[in-house]
Amino acid sequence: MKAAVYEGPRKVSVKDVPDARIEHPCDILVKVTTTNICGSDLHMYEGRTSFEPGRTLGHENLGQVVEVGSAVSKVQVGEYVVLPFNIACGFCKQCERGLTNYCLTMQPEPSLAGAAYGFAEMGPYQGGQAELLRVPYGDFNALRLGEDAAERQLDYVMLADIFPTGYHATEMARVRPGDQTLVMGAGPVGLMAAYSAILKGAGRVWVADHQQDRLRIAEEIGAVAIDTNEADPVEVVKDATLGLGADNGCECVGYQAHDPQGQEDASLTVNQLIDAVRFTGDIGVVGVYLPEDPGGEDAQGELEAQGKLPLDYGLMWFKGQTMGTGQAPVKRYNRALRDLVAGGRAEPGFVVSHELDLDEAPSAYEHFDRREDGWTKVVLHPDGHRP
Amino acid sequence: MKAAVYEGPRKVSVKDVPDARIEHPCDILVKVTTTNICGSDLHMYEGRTSFEPGRTLGHENLGQVVEVGSAVSKVQVGEYVVLPFNIACGFCKQCERGLTNYCLTMQPEPSLAGAAYGFAEMGPYQGGQAELLRVPYGDFNALRLGEDAAERQLDYVMLADIFPTGYHATEMARVRPGDQTLVMGAGPVGLMAAYSAILKGAGRVWVADHQQDRLRIAEEIGAVAIDTNEADPVEVVKDATLGLGADNGCECVGYQAHDPQGQEDASLTVNQLIDAVRFTGDIGVVGVYLPEDPGGEDAQGELEAQGKLPLDYGLMWFKGQTMGTGQAPVKRYNRALRDLVAGGRAEPGFVVSHELDLDEAPSAYEHFDRREDGWTKVVLHPDGHRP
Amino acid sequence: MKAAVYEGPRKVSVKDVPDARIEHPCDILVKVTTTNICGSDLHMYEGRTSFEPGRTLGHENLGQVVEVGSAVSKVQVGEYVVLPFNIACGFCKQCERGLTNYCLTMQPEPSLAGAAYGFAEMGPYQGGQAELLRVPYGDFNALRLGEDAAERQLDYVMLADIFPTGYHATEMARVRPGDQTLVMGAGPVGLMAAYSAILKGAGRVWVADHQQDRLRIAEEIGAVAIDTNEADPVEVVKDATLGLGADNGCECVGYQAHDPQGQEDASLTVNQLIDAVRFTGDIGVVGVYLPEDPGGEDAQGELEAQGKLPLDYGLMWFKGQTMGTGQAPVKRYNRALRDLVAGGRAEPGFVVSHELDLDEAPSAYEHFDRREDGWTKVVLHPDGHRP
Amino acid sequence: MKAAVYEGPRKVSVKDVPDARIEHPCDILVKVTTTNICGSDLHMYEGRTSFEPGRTLGHENLGQVVEVGSAVSKVQVGEYVVLPFNIACGFCKQCERGLTNYCLTMQPEPSLAGAAYGFAEMGPYQGGQAELLRVPYGDFNALRLGEDAAERQLDYVMLADIFPTGYHATEMARVRPGDQTLVMGAGPVGLMAAYSAILKGAGRVWVADHQQDRLRIAEEIGAVAIDTNEADPVEVVKDATLGLGADNGCECVGYQAHDPQGQEDASLTVNQLIDAVRFTGDIGVVGVYLPEDPGGEDAQGELEAQGKLPLDYGLMWFKGQTMGTGQAPVKRYNRALRDLVAGGRAEPGFVVSHELDLDEAPSAYEHFDRREDGWTKVVLHPDGHRP
Repeated sequence: MKAAVYEGPRKVSVKDVPDARIEHPCDILVKVTTTNICGSDLHMYEGRTSFEPGRTLGHENLGQVVEVGSAVSKVQVGEYVVLPFNIACGFCKQCERGLTNYCLTMQPEPSLAGAAYGFAEMGPYQGGQAELLRVPYGDFNALRLGEDAAERQLDYVMLADIFPTGYHATEMARVRPGDQTLVMGAGPVGLMAAYSAILKGAGRVWVADHQQDRLRIAEEIGAVAIDTNEADPVEVVKDATLGLGADNGCECVGYQAHDPQGQEDASLTVNQLIDAVRFTGDIGVVGVYLPEDPGGEDAQGELEAQGKLPLDYGLMWFKGQTMGTGQAPVKRYNRALRDLVAGGRAEPGFVVSHELDLDEAPSAYEHFDRREDGWTKVVLHPDGHRP
Repeated sequence: MKAAVYEGPRKVSVKDVPDARIEHPCDILVKVTTTNICGSDLHMYEGRTSFEPGRTLGHENLGQVVEVGSAVSKVQVGEYVVLPFNIACGFCKQCERGLTNYCLTMQPEPSLAGAAYGFAEMGPYQGGQAELLRVPYGDFNALRLGEDAAERQLDYVMLADIFPTGYHATEMARVRPGDQTLVMGAGPVGLMAAYSAILKGAGRVWVADHQQDRLRIAEEIGAVAIDTNEADPVEVVKDATLGLGADNGCECVGYQAHDPQGQEDASLTVNQLIDAVRFTGDIGVVGVYLPEDPGGEDAQGELEAQGKLPLDYGLMWFKGQTMGTGQAPVKRYNRALRDLVAGGRAEPGFVVSHELDLDEAPSAYEHFDRREDGWTKVVLHPDGHRP
Repeated sequence: MKAAVYEGPRKVSVKDVPDARIEHPCDILVKVTTTNICGSDLHMYEGRTSFEPGRTLGHENLGQVVEVGSAVSKVQVGEYVVLPFNIACGFCKQCERGLTNYCLTMQPEPSLAGAAYGFAEMGPYQGGQAELLRVPYGDFNALRLGEDAAERQLDYVMLADIFPTGYHATEMARVRPGDQTLVMGAGPVGLMAAYSAILKGAGRVWVADHQQDRLRIAEEIGAVAIDTNEADPVEVVKDATLGLGADNGCECVGYQAHDPQGQEDASLTVNQLIDAVRFTGDIGVVGVYLPEDPGGEDAQGELEAQGKLPLDYGLMWFKGQTMGTGQAPVKRYNRALRDLVAGGRAEPGFVVSHELDLDEAPSAYEHFDRREDGWTKVVLHPDGHRP
Repeated sequence: MKAAVYEGPRKVSVKDVPDARIEHPCDILVKVTTTNICGSDLHMYEGRTSFEPGRTLGHENLGQVVEVGSAVSKVQVGEYVVLPFNIACGFCKQCERGLTNYCLTMQPEPSLAGAAYGFAEMGPYQGGQAELLRVPYGDFNALRLGEDAAERQLDYVMLADIFPTGYHATEMARVRPGDQTLVMGAGPVGLMAAYSAILKGAGRVWVADHQQDRLRIAEEIGAVAIDTNEADPVEVVKDATLGLGADNGCECVGYQAHDPQGQEDASLTVNQLIDAVRFTGDIGVVGVYLPEDPGGEDAQGELEAQGKLPLDYGLMWFKGQTMGTGQAPVKRYNRALRDLVAGGRAEPGFVVSHELDLDEAPSAYEHFDRREDGWTKVVLHPDGHRP
């Protein structure tokens, strides 16, 4: 089968690899029809992780079931399914509590937790930017879709990662009806966080970024855009709240944040949220941070190479804030969000800017990695069909 | 009346000051019979805050009501009451939600929140290391005690601060029955956090410190002591949990943490908790951190003078932990904890090492500030009676 | 001053009564500009309660502050305020936890809890269908409005009771984004429950009633109407959910429920919800039920005169449902809902069908009590001005 | 293999039946070493359910794994495991949320939910009062025990049902440290509810029953006994709480409640809790109630044959109480409770009164069904060994 294979820093090729296949009685095999490139794929693409050359990328996957293992009883051949990026067993201490983002079984390293398709440090699983995908524990991991799935793949594929991830930011930030919420980052995840906050009845949602094309989308979904080239988001929010600050903060940028001068500063957005969120407010951080980052290159380069960030922790404590962090437990949210999509209440596919064939993956990575204007979200169709 | 007055770095005098009195119809006036010296008093005593010379110290206060304002309807003259260290109005946006730790009314600075008796940056209120104390919004702030109050002041006075503060650490760390909990610090607050975790049914509670006298008390209440002179608490906890880490972490030391070599390192204990607590575990931080600390003196001195801490944030995010911070909302807990004391289920007075007269405050501050062996918790009796 | 006074079953007169005035240093005095007639006023109007002749009705009140007591510090003369129907002290065990609906201080009967303006069994307080209203503990009870208050009184007055009450039903029923929710009753409270569920992102909301005029409004706000003259709501919901039932149920009718044949059956709607809500689903009941109802007249008349209801409790237990009941703690929600109104995200005034002068109260009660077509919600303006 | 087979009302025989065996790749096969008789077994024993003659009883099971299916990866042959009485798939909508008590997959009837071993209306699964037990979805359902399991089976077997069930009652009743809690029923489940409340730090726990032998055990674990032959539990609780009532109520009797005169009255204990629990208090009901009870025989016989109970619902609503109901989701609690047992913090085996061989099952049922003095809890050992 064909697959988008990582070959080294900034090098992805589409090439033939052995077919994915059923390896365990609980596996299912999926013909991938829609698979996204994610901002976190770029961390691997840029060579800033331990991702092994030769592996297939792709953790945002949707497709049609073509085979099921002998122990599978719920999922049927022919059904459309969308797969959470986290691979989880369903029965470990973490999965039991719904913490499928930090499954202890699927992660082979005993001191770690969590697994994903085609992801550094998240187990040996191949990604879905390919014609076929093996899905472990299919009854647990696959979310089945209804009859409208074939036509609405652009909406449903967002359930694999970014819609639940943006939603998770708002859950950790405890967004409630009437709240005023600041989202740092208007990338696909930031847009989904803003969309989720609005869906939950937030009173006002700001989205801060330096890319105008993305800020326009934020405004289209009802958020207030803050262009960080022109204004300090902390000041904008304080001015609008009698100096008190936002009720909630969502971090959707991660360690590759850049200051207005273009200098990478991993602590920038978290510190801005600590400043912009009110006393006793809540902050949810879904942007990626790394325990070690050999590529850290800013003024605090030495600190960050150790994974340390110079946080305004004294201020955070003084304000009595809480902070939730980490990858999203997609399964906690994807069923309810699917129902909103199915009922027409949510259409997260608005974030898609490009639909391409699998063969176009190499150039798609190049454009997306350069954060080119208008390249918000790339969707690949390994089966060659646009839904 | 007599009061313990701060006169400058490491100088406290007991002297005559104007009598506290009713200033508002909702005030009550309390004859202080028991008042504690708190570890956070030492921050002011040492001159590392903006606390103004001439002000009276003391935010852990218990006494007898001697006068009530014309609008007071619940509290009666003659009743024993214990006062939460936080002074709160009861009707602002924060108090409405139970966030009396960050009251917007009693804090005069519009960009800040929270007030306390005799405390830097927490409003102009005098402390209770004095014969009389003015208590604003007496019906809201005073917790009334039963007939056993006079005899059991050492237990009940702990409801003013350290028992609820330790309990708050366990709430933010979401300690539940069966959990394994690591408490950093065996000072009075750390001991109360351990005591609270045990009370809630925690399965195992470790307390880490370098002072043997305090570790002995930790063992007496059923915790497992870790002497940081001899062992790394992170290793002890990981060894005992198959490498997975504790379920919860409670930080009860604050920015004056010292490494085993005696070097102050403000980020030490938080980073140890990030390492020692499991993936998706919860951390509660009640140890004090400051937005700015001109006295910061460790290797990261420059960072910390700005209130920045070099946190292992990449690791925290990678593990998907949550962290709650800040002062405790005493009123959220003090009524239930009072009932446990009244019913004999809790006796937090075990932490008291010294009962002294108000006149002995100056030397008590000296001994306590030197962290002398056996000086765990000092209680003063301005009325000259030992209960 | 003029006031709408209850004179006995089905008799309300507008007459002169002594002016309301400041009686305690924490009181404020409000010139009422908008005050609603509530469905629960009809229980008193019909003589089915112990409400004393001679008392003024009206617990949904909005107006302008004309005087404040000497202890009041937040509320200012001239401000518009909306008053929660519950009168609460702010400092009792219940208010401390936010349970202002069951305040222990303002209710004079020691074995009861909760107080309200102009309400049976809820203390001696006069209602606001009058020119002036005394508001106890003004800083705690009054919610201040912004500069748009004078113009938008029809929206803001709904914060006194029905918007928070409908919202409370959805909180007790734990409505979350994507949920399918059944609301029994399309009266003003049922409409507000549906409106709240939609605001929170519910996937589908049904509203069941037998009055077409009200069902039309339900459809206008985006709910699915079920006309109980034509269909059984239990069957409609089960048919739409593969037999599984709704996720949540909101009871907004109360003990005066009528079956399709027009027979009063107090247990009807609760039993329908037990049947229509899925296994482990949640039910919130804000419709009024009485401990004793001498006027109960249905087949189970004898039972209901004792306040007993023949519930399908075996089925409820078998399905593992939870049920929350009782009056709403308005203060828990009114601030956030006010912010939604102020920001234009919510316009609950859509429910108003009639704006009348205070003098028209007697005939308004007559029409409303007959549930005449189109009489959804009556608003009175004691100051004679339409905003 | 030998098994305790239900043969009709009040008739159980131990006889040879076909060996349990692996039927699905996810199954495990367990040699039962300890299995309890539960109060709910008596409902079937007495013929008041649809339980089919010829089926094996027993849903509280512990034993050693003797074989695992080809898809099983966590559970190992030779390990001791304790099995939650609920059989759950781990991947349906309910299991995903931790609602394994109402699994949609294992219950064959599409309009129902939930499955159990050897239980009426809970699927076709055989019980564990036998030498061997087939456990579906073994990795999900089995809780593995440590090396002390063989010696401490009497403690660990309680994790199959009654310890988590009693604990669930306290969770639904929201018992928190310092609370005052009333438990109706001193049977094994009631004792476990009281034990759980004490473990969580409740301030005072009452247990009401009419059997002195059980009340003595309640006192031994630190509860306050109320002998309903001599006192009305409602009055006792109100007298002890200034008339306010208990904070929480736990119903652990069910529909076979009897009044002091020995008359069965299914609504008795729920109505007592509504009366005895304070305004806004919480009630958790784990005692069994049936949608239909042909055997109902009290004054309200006609109502109860329809599963209707004459509840004091007007009073419940007036007091604003919440009520949770239904079977316990054992997996939500059993891991934490196991850790408490393993660490010596909990020893729920105190409830055992009799250890017998499987052959003694018929007479054990007879004694237990007569509620004979001293027959609190019967444990059977199908392998013939006392641990």
